[in-house]
Amino acid sequence: MDIDYKALAKKYGTPLYMYDFDYIEHRYNDLKEAFAGKKSLINYAVKANSNLSVIAHLAKLGAGADCVSIGEVRRALDAGVKKYNIIFSGVGKRDDEIREALEKDILMLNLESEAEMKRVEMIAKELGKEARISIRVNPNIDPQTHPYISTGLHENKFGVEIDMAKRMYIYANKSEYLNPVGIHFHIGSQLTKLDPIRESAQIVADLVRSLKAIKIDIKFFDVGGGIGVVYSDEITIPVRDYAEAIFDATKGLDVTLLCEPGRYMVANAGAFFTSVLYEKVNAGKRFVIVDGGMNDLIRPSLYDAYHKIDAVMVEGEKSFADVVGPVCESGDFFGKNVLLPPLQHNDLLVVHSAGAYGFTMASNYNTRPKPAEVALEAGKDRLIRRRESYEDQIRLEKEFLHRDQ
Amino acid sequence: MDIDYKALAKKYGTPLYMYDFDYIEHRYNDLKEAFAGKKSLINYAVKANSNLSVIAHLAKLGAGADCVSIGEVRRALDAGVKKYNIIFSGVGKRDDEIREALEKDILMLNLESEAEMKRVEMIAKELGKEARISIRVNPNIDPQTHPYISTGLHENKFGVEIDMAKRMYIYANKSEYLNPVGIHFHIGSQLTKLDPIRESAQIVADLVRSLKAIKIDIKFFDVGGGIGVVYSDEITIPVRDYAEAIFDATKGLDVTLLCEPGRYMVANAGAFFTSVLYEKVNAGKRFVIVDGGMNDLIRPSLYDAYHKIDAVMVEGEKSFADVVGPVCESGDFFGKNVLLPPLQHNDLLVVHSAGAYGFTMASNYNTRPKPAEVALEAGKDRLIRRRESYEDQIRLEKEFLHRDQ
Ligand SMILES: Cc1ncc(COP(=O)(O)O)c(C=O)c1O
Ligand SMILES: Cc1ncc(COP(=O)(O)O)c(C=O)c1O
Repeated sequence: MDIDYKALAKKYGTPLYMYDFDYIEHRYNDLKEAFAGKKSLINYAVKANSNLSVIAHLAKLGAGADCVSIGEVRRALDAGVKKYNIIFSGVGKRDDEIREALEKDILMLNLESEAEMKRVEMIAKELGKEARISIRVNPNIDPQTHPYISTGLHENKFGVEIDMAKRMYIYANKSEYLNPVGIHFHIGSQLTKLDPIRESAQIVADLVRSLKAIKIDIKFFDVGGGIGVVYSDEITIPVRDYAEAIFDATKGLDVTLLCEPGRYMVANAGAFFTSVLYEKVNAGKRFVIVDGGMNDLIRPSLYDAYHKIDAVMVEGEKSFADVVGPVCESGDFFGKNVLLPPLQHNDLLVVHSAGAYGFTMASNYNTRPKPAEVALEAGKDRLIRRRESYEDQIRLEKEFLHRDQ
Repeated sequence: MDIDYKALAKKYGTPLYMYDFDYIEHRYNDLKEAFAGKKSLINYAVKANSNLSVIAHLAKLGAGADCVSIGEVRRALDAGVKKYNIIFSGVGKRDDEIREALEKDILMLNLESEAEMKRVEMIAKELGKEARISIRVNPNIDPQTHPYISTGLHENKFGVEIDMAKRMYIYANKSEYLNPVGIHFHIGSQLTKLDPIRESAQIVADLVRSLKAIKIDIKFFDVGGGIGVVYSDEITIPVRDYAEAIFDATKGLDVTLLCEPGRYMVANAGAFFTSVLYEKVNAGKRFVIVDGGMNDLIRPSLYDAYHKIDAVMVEGEKSFADVVGPVCESGDFFGKNVLLPPLQHNDLLVVHSAGAYGFTMASNYNTRPKPAEVALEAGKDRLIRRRESYEDQIRLEKEFLHRDQ
């Protein structure tokens, strides 16, 4: 694209998130085509980037939504996702969330424990409804990714073991208030190996076959999210191979395939723009201090995640520098030993691949306002979230301040 | 204290932060008394807990404020801290922040690089003002704490080396627009050893003496924050020893002593309350799933920080469990292998020592609303920040949603 990022940074201010909506569309279409041979639905994982306009963009393309809180369900509905395309997953749902999800009549609730199933049954009974459910099965496969985003092994909180799942399906099938329509697994995020997914799909498909044998008919086969993306030089999974592996595993089963990509859809659609404040050298080490901080983008600090960083339209001989923010923690950095030209006050840096788990994890640490978000679509830019103000930050506490009490 | 936490959790809902204002007062008074022998000012580090009512409570006791963004400066002023008791620190200040701080005529700006000094000078000149400044000196002392909150060694972004500091003081002293009134160091947070502080104070006091010799008269000697607290079984620094060490180091110097405690003042004043949703067992491992998440309190996930966790008024034989939240990450936990009795839906857990770097680091990840905050004072409870609503979360993006575009 031929975009004048300097001008956009000036127009909207920094720090700033920018998302390329055309790229999102292109990613969606690639994945949709890969699944074209079968009944399928792509449920965008809202947690990756939950801006209403991002969800609306995907909804217009036909995407459903994978939500992990009632807030995310509301976002999906507000953004125009059809209620029968919304699933509500997550390891801990409150009663009021379960109730609202049932009242809103979304596609299904994805359950992660027996105790949760009992609560859903109880609430469905209170409402006089039948709850459509799926169960998240833990296939006990090592996804070979970062421990914090690895979720497919037994010794973690996610899903239930195969035996337990089977018992739960039998129970649900008998219950007047539960309708087991789906099955689900998700073994981790930023997956770059297909084998763990293939193996998991096979294990779960076998479970579906054994349920069929006892007349429990699963209609939705949900393979979760987790497709990895390129941050640096990763070799990622071609979506056609991904779809093929799932077609193979589910051969002969009459199911609708669901997948829940988050990062795949938006990570590389987004970039984080931040302006240089100063350079400094401490003990021979070069630091570039920028106006963005770990409160805006916590991935480097939280996961030790790599993000490529470039200076926008700056020439000069490059040397290594740490790119750090104004937050009073050594963990406040975007990159270490980044090759950068000499930088002046107000030069612009772009932190790439920041479209997923960027803004959604932003905080107000150090009373820093959350950045603005901008969409780029067909060569046009538009604001999709205003920069927070100081007033926004104190809105919920101001009325309780009694200086003379 | 004889407080019915169950009743309060019911009244305000969970997840919930609660702060004991009497404890804060008691901590403030202890520290103030320790410094009683000398001119001193306690500048509460607002970043630790920046709720307006918390700051106001400390302001009433006579505390100043240590701020790291213009937002924190505004909070301090709004909460009633006197402008001549406010300092503005931080490694990266934007021009508009510098300008506003000068216009608001706060005590001083604490500078962290030569480049920053030049910008402050330039802006002061524009405003026709003289900027009162201090310089953060990096004494190159190992504080012996967590690398993310360790800031006193050379190979990090904070402060300037002694030689550079001296050059900067000489420059500032000559400048028409700069008035070097203070000196500052801060070597890290959660310090439990006095020696690194003592050594740093001595190094910095020697610099003050050598500046005095060339007629640069430093009035404020700021020893930073960082006094550690008890999370588990840490042996912490007695505040009298702390003050003594600083008295010793500054012997013979006519300076006002400043310190900037954050954690010391509020960490153990606060607790985070969360309700049990379910228990589950995966592969023989027990999980307690609660309604609070890493978005509410990220310290366990980000720093691998330990927080003591108890069940409130629940009896029964204890066994080990991981206490985890509803967020879809394995990193979403409050404690691992915590000894807890069998727990039921709606039982209440308290995560201790959550008053510092708790709420201030909260995010809306997974579209989860930030928790409410409650103050306890003289046996009374009162709300000091309302729980966020869904509407609050979409306020800044709703107007940009065009579903039919
Ligand atoms: C159940 C579930 N589905 C989908 C996703 C989205 O993952 P990704 O962004 O890696 O595609 C997650 C991420 O944590 C998840 O837990
Ligand atoms: C300059 C400065 N002062 C004070 C503090 C407060 O530290 P603590 O909460 O450990 O007292 C910090 C914390 O990062 C800091 O960077």
